[in-house]
Amino acid sequence: MLGSTHGTFTTDLRARVVACGQESAGCGERERGGLDVSGRPLAAAVPDLDRFFRPESVAVVGASDTEGRPGAGITRQLIRWAERVGARLHPVHPGRETVYGLPCVPSVTALPGPVDLAVLLVADPLPVVEELATTGARFAVVFASGFAETGARGAEAQARLVAAARRAGVRLLGPNTNLNAFEEFRDDLDGPAIALITQSGHQGRPLYALQELGVRLSHWAPTGNEADLETADFLAYFAERPEVGAVACYLEGLKDGRSFLLAADRAARRGVPVVAVKVGRTETGARTAASHTGKLTGADDVVDAAMRQFGVARVSGLDELQDTATLLARARRPRSDGVAVYAISGGTGAHFADLASAAGLHLPPLAPATQSALRQWIPGDLNVTNPVDSGGHPVGDERGREIIDALLADPGVGVLVCPITGPFPPLSDKLAQDLVDAAERTDKPVCVVWGSPVGTEAAYRETLLGSSRVTTFRTFGNCVTAVKAYLDHHRFTAAYRSPFDEAPRTPSPSLRKARALLDPGRRLSEHAAKQLLRAYGIRVPREQLVTSAAAAVRAAGLVGYPVVMKASAPQLAHKTELGLVRIGLTSASQVRDTYRDLTEIARYEGIDLDGVLVCQMIERGVEMMAGVTHDALFGPTVTVGLGGVLVEVLQDTAVRVPPFGEDQARAMLGELRGRALLDGVRGGPPLDVDALVEVVLRVQRMALELGDDLAELDINPLVVLERGQGAVALDALAVCR
Amino acid sequence: MLGSTHGTFTTDLRARVVACGQESAGCGERERGGLDVSGRPLAAAVPDLDRFFRPESVAVVGASDTEGRPGAGITRQLIRWAERVGARLHPVHPGRETVYGLPCVPSVTALPGPVDLAVLLVADPLPVVEELATTGARFAVVFASGFAETGARGAEAQARLVAAARRAGVRLLGPNTNLNAFEEFRDDLDGPAIALITQSGHQGRPLYALQELGVRLSHWAPTGNEADLETADFLAYFAERPEVGAVACYLEGLKDGRSFLLAADRAARRGVPVVAVKVGRTETGARTAASHTGKLTGADDVVDAAMRQFGVARVSGLDELQDTATLLARARRPRSDGVAVYAISGGTGAHFADLASAAGLHLPPLAPATQSALRQWIPGDLNVTNPVDSGGHPVGDERGREIIDALLADPGVGVLVCPITGPFPPLSDKLAQDLVDAAERTDKPVCVVWGSPVGTEAAYRETLLGSSRVTTFRTFGNCVTAVKAYLDHHRFTAAYRSPFDEAPRTPSPSLRKARALLDPGRRLSEHAAKQLLRAYGIRVPREQLVTSAAAAVRAAGLVGYPVVMKASAPQLAHKTELGLVRIGLTSASQVRDTYRDLTEIARYEGIDLDGVLVCQMIERGVEMMAGVTHDALFGPTVTVGLGGVLVEVLQDTAVRVPPFGEDQARAMLGELRGRALLDGVRGGPPLDVDALVEVVLRVQRMALELGDDLAELDINPLVVLERGQGAVALDALAVCR
Repeated sequence: MLGSTHGTFTTDLRARVVACGQESAGCGERERGGLDVSGRPLAAAVPDLDRFFRPESVAVVGASDTEGRPGAGITRQLIRWAERVGARLHPVHPGRETVYGLPCVPSVTALPGPVDLAVLLVADPLPVVEELATTGARFAVVFASGFAETGARGAEAQARLVAAARRAGVRLLGPNTNLNAFEEFRDDLDGPAIALITQSGHQGRPLYALQELGVRLSHWAPTGNEADLETADFLAYFAERPEVGAVACYLEGLKDGRSFLLAADRAARRGVPVVAVKVGRTETGARTAASHTGKLTGADDVVDAAMRQFGVARVSGLDELQDTATLLARARRPRSDGVAVYAISGGTGAHFADLASAAGLHLPPLAPATQSALRQWIPGDLNVTNPVDSGGHPVGDERGREIIDALLADPGVGVLVCPITGPFPPLSDKLAQDLVDAAERTDKPVCVVWGSPVGTEAAYRETLLGSSRVTTFRTFGNCVTAVKAYLDHHRFTAAYRSPFDEAPRTPSPSLRKARALLDPGRRLSEHAAKQLLRAYGIRVPREQLVTSAAAAVRAAGLVGYPVVMKASAPQLAHKTELGLVRIGLTSASQVRDTYRDLTEIARYEGIDLDGVLVCQMIERGVEMMAGVTHDALFGPTVTVGLGGVLVEVLQDTAVRVPPFGEDQARAMLGELRGRALLDGVRGGPPLDVDALVEVVLRVQRMALELGDDLAELDINPLVVLERGQGAVALDALAVCR
Repeated sequence: MLGSTHGTFTTDLRARVVACGQESAGCGERERGGLDVSGRPLAAAVPDLDRFFRPESVAVVGASDTEGRPGAGITRQLIRWAERVGARLHPVHPGRETVYGLPCVPSVTALPGPVDLAVLLVADPLPVVEELATTGARFAVVFASGFAETGARGAEAQARLVAAARRAGVRLLGPNTNLNAFEEFRDDLDGPAIALITQSGHQGRPLYALQELGVRLSHWAPTGNEADLETADFLAYFAERPEVGAVACYLEGLKDGRSFLLAADRAARRGVPVVAVKVGRTETGARTAASHTGKLTGADDVVDAAMRQFGVARVSGLDELQDTATLLARARRPRSDGVAVYAISGGTGAHFADLASAAGLHLPPLAPATQSALRQWIPGDLNVTNPVDSGGHPVGDERGREIIDALLADPGVGVLVCPITGPFPPLSDKLAQDLVDAAERTDKPVCVVWGSPVGTEAAYRETLLGSSRVTTFRTFGNCVTAVKAYLDHHRFTAAYRSPFDEAPRTPSPSLRKARALLDPGRRLSEHAAKQLLRAYGIRVPREQLVTSAAAAVRAAGLVGYPVVMKASAPQLAHKTELGLVRIGLTSASQVRDTYRDLTEIARYEGIDLDGVLVCQMIERGVEMMAGVTHDALFGPTVTVGLGGVLVEVLQDTAVRVPPFGEDQARAMLGELRGRALLDGVRGGPPLDVDALVEVVLRVQRMALELGDDLAELDINPLVVLERGQGAVALDALAVCR
């Protein structure tokens, strides 16, 4: 699953785009972003889901009021929901006159008028979906299970369902989904809301329960098998809704990598934070998740990179998802990235500061004026720098409020965090109230950690959770994670430029040259692979392919001594191990002897050489690598890392999903543990990082233009020379499809 | 703070041990473990604290019953506590006849008889401590602050206090401590208890509150400034107590690294789990913590390594500390390291399995018989392998209990985890009860995750928290952390052999040779440093130090061409950058010319050479490094890692605190990201790992024997050859003190 399925991906996408061009369902809303050079769309399709979430009329097919049957409970919940959203509800059942007093029709074809939404409670939804063609219905929800999540036969049934929906002009949610879209949301809560997308009803429950902690929710999309409407559709839609402050996603797989990225791009453009749990960090998790939803999980490092590229905050646990989404929904853009920590105990402040700093948060010393002000209220040997330790007592009187106001007034403070490890009424009760009051008077986020494991205290349940201006955490760890995600989100969106706006739409002149070199289904010879690189402007050593000892000597003279000689053949791997690479040849006689050696070894090994390469020897520089691989979910990806022997041992690489800009190419280098190698080693000169970045971007261009035809590209070693001297691909492996 | 204070550490330790030999206070209890070759103790001093925690008589100096004064509340709490533990309480106050009805004496010298414990509430404790000399008191607790935590002057006052206590024959807790040792513990809870050691009262509160979640506590040691009694004393004592199932520590610094390790060793020998938060992961945290308690924090990677060496489970947050200590206290030795995950939703199982696998937990497929049994109760398309997904419904009837029993009966299952993400009564209520019932019938740990963020549900508060056989978590993450720590703990203690039993007590014959080479306060020449290595049996290249070109040529003949030539001088750094290293010299004339080059450069640079080294050239092998540095907290430490240029760039090293055995030396290699280099690269032969381990152990011997005189040792590169060929120190840097 992880990367082995080169090939089918892009083709499918193209087919999909072409299909969208021809059919109306699901494509009418696509913005005119056009296609990139690989045929992939450049803008999200944003379906209009207003009538899905707030329909005027709803048909419930299979409605029942026979108590004890599951359908009865569902029908009741749908009736309550329809009342709340102001929709007329039409029960549909062949054997009833009324359901819960509402007039019932025998089939959808007998509905009194067009409905916005049909909810299908029936075990076999296909005939109903087919009948919807005549009803003008815009959306159908299918609860039935037994489709793609059960294997190949179920997948076929699901494909038939999708085809029927497309013919009927209906957008489909499900199959294998549930009632979560029709849950009740509290309307007494204020502040920006969280919209939920979950691929498991049970896993969504704690998110829904956030309302009991005073957090406002606006939507819940339980996407089920995503036969038609998928996570990306809801994400793109939610990003447009004014009441949505953040989108929280629980994901087990994705139907399509590109559409997810386009939706995330849309959220990033609009500055809407997206927080996600994505199962599949391990093979165990990925395998189990796949069997649960029948979706692709993708290689986890690629998922991670893709989410980072588009500003999606990935977290591990549902608790982190809840806490991070809550803070991101509520908190406005920070005016500074400084975090002030205010504690009533020195130990608490030290511990929080330690965890916060370890996570990369910035705890600046408070401004001198703030420190002076604090010193009026805080005794002399306690810390007023940051973290601030009031020692406890000042909290109990008017100083408590003064301290908080002074901290929030400091221009270097973007976020105030107050960890309260142990409740100690009346001090902690007053502190909680002062924090809630202060939060009303500022637009800076105020975060509290209520560290008591009990959690039934009034200061927590009533005072803190009663405020939508304060975000209250239960652990230091989750507070640090959320504050980090909050500051990262705003740093990211402030600098965000959509790579889709700059993605190439037309082939470069290189493509024609490159195509001529491809050899479908084969691994190219080193020489051919290097020609491919040259076609894209990536520098290779001076070299000649020769087929006689005499030609080798002539070539060496032209290339310049010392030279490297390598056997060249398609399908040739492990050249070094076979003794087919010789370096540092300094004379014509050495070249002549080496030519004979190499050809003899090749004959002995049964290798059909296309010749021997006589190459310029590059003796300085640092060995890196760059390449292209294919991900099952995201298609071609670009990798850069330490090269040479170390690439295998240290696996110090960074990956990105195209399209990405120069900023991301530079950021890739920053992710390498061995990044400092590029700054020059042991007093050596700094290396040509710009040239390396340029190679990465040219490799991306190859991935975009050749992605479908190039199964794998591995430039290793890619030697980076001193600044101004460039980078040279000493060896390359290219496998065609 | 981080490593810059070579020197004073070990000397202090020696002084301390000598002092203990001469004085009674605090040393009478030291077991006769003797001293190692560096003069450090080899066994923990375990003070008898029975009479501290359960005294027969207590004096409260500064007792008060004037309501509104802080002393009154403290006195009341102490009276309640004394009643509970059955101690007679004597108020001491110069101006009162009685306090809360108890007869009061004017000073400790007027006490009616000897007391076990004196609690000093007075602002200036020194005179009282001095007076205690005549009372026979065994312990004193000093609440007053303003000592070492405030700076140098406070540290002097603290030293006077300690000296007075020693003269008085009293063990001291504090100063700058609090009432936590005299808190009430619930006696209605069963199961093994947690003993607490905290260096901050506020940070200890959530641990104390665990009792409200049904977790039994037995002791609480708030160690304050640790002027005398320190964390290690309490840890060693708790490890001996039969009622203690685990020790939970919140640490900001340590008074002394060695005594902590000896106490942890004692716990490891007895199989008592120790879980610790240790602040100081970052400089910010370390600095703030130091200003809070005036203790040493040590370099964090060294703290981390030291804790791992002695089986202390280090966690980051107080929430993890609570959860991990609870599971470790309650759960018995596992019969298997297999973790079975049982969920009522496929998503929940997949998500938990993903996080658990990512943390390195082993989720084996269940035994075929177990799977067949489960299939009777769980519908056909749901997972019965592991994680198990019951789909929910079977929980509601008798199948629910059968499933749990079948899982617990599987011989490959060591731990059962049931994540319940959303409460869904009656299913989740029954599931909780079934788990609690099943836990009564098994000795395998049963872990539940109650994922609802609300946490007020009866199934959680009453059913789950009411059981001491089930451990209930609130997040997947904390459950995974605790289960990992639990399995690691038992794996560790099962294999544990105390390195203190094998630590050298007498100098090796190498020491005399080595001492002759040392040059106090100076950096040795490369040649001298290599002689030091040779004295300890670490191989260096064949080489000669020469002082003429003719001698260089003769030396090259003896060493064998090709040779390497290097300028050699004390205090000489950056040889390579200065052009003072030449490799691959193949002829007498090259050697002669090079000799002249090197001496000319040295003259030009003003370097006073002790000669030129003519060395054997080692062309194969992998460059590693090994060395010794000094840690402020733990003294000399041993490091091994990738060497050559990469050591600076990748910083891929592992560290250990002596003494450690061969197992730990091998484990160090396992921690290196570049470990695979030692297995052979690109089809090359595996390298001589045994020889590398032997070098690490010999370096440890140097650290132990020369620790005080050798400020720094850095063998780099240390070339490791093919298996059976050994390892050779190509260069070495040694700095003497």
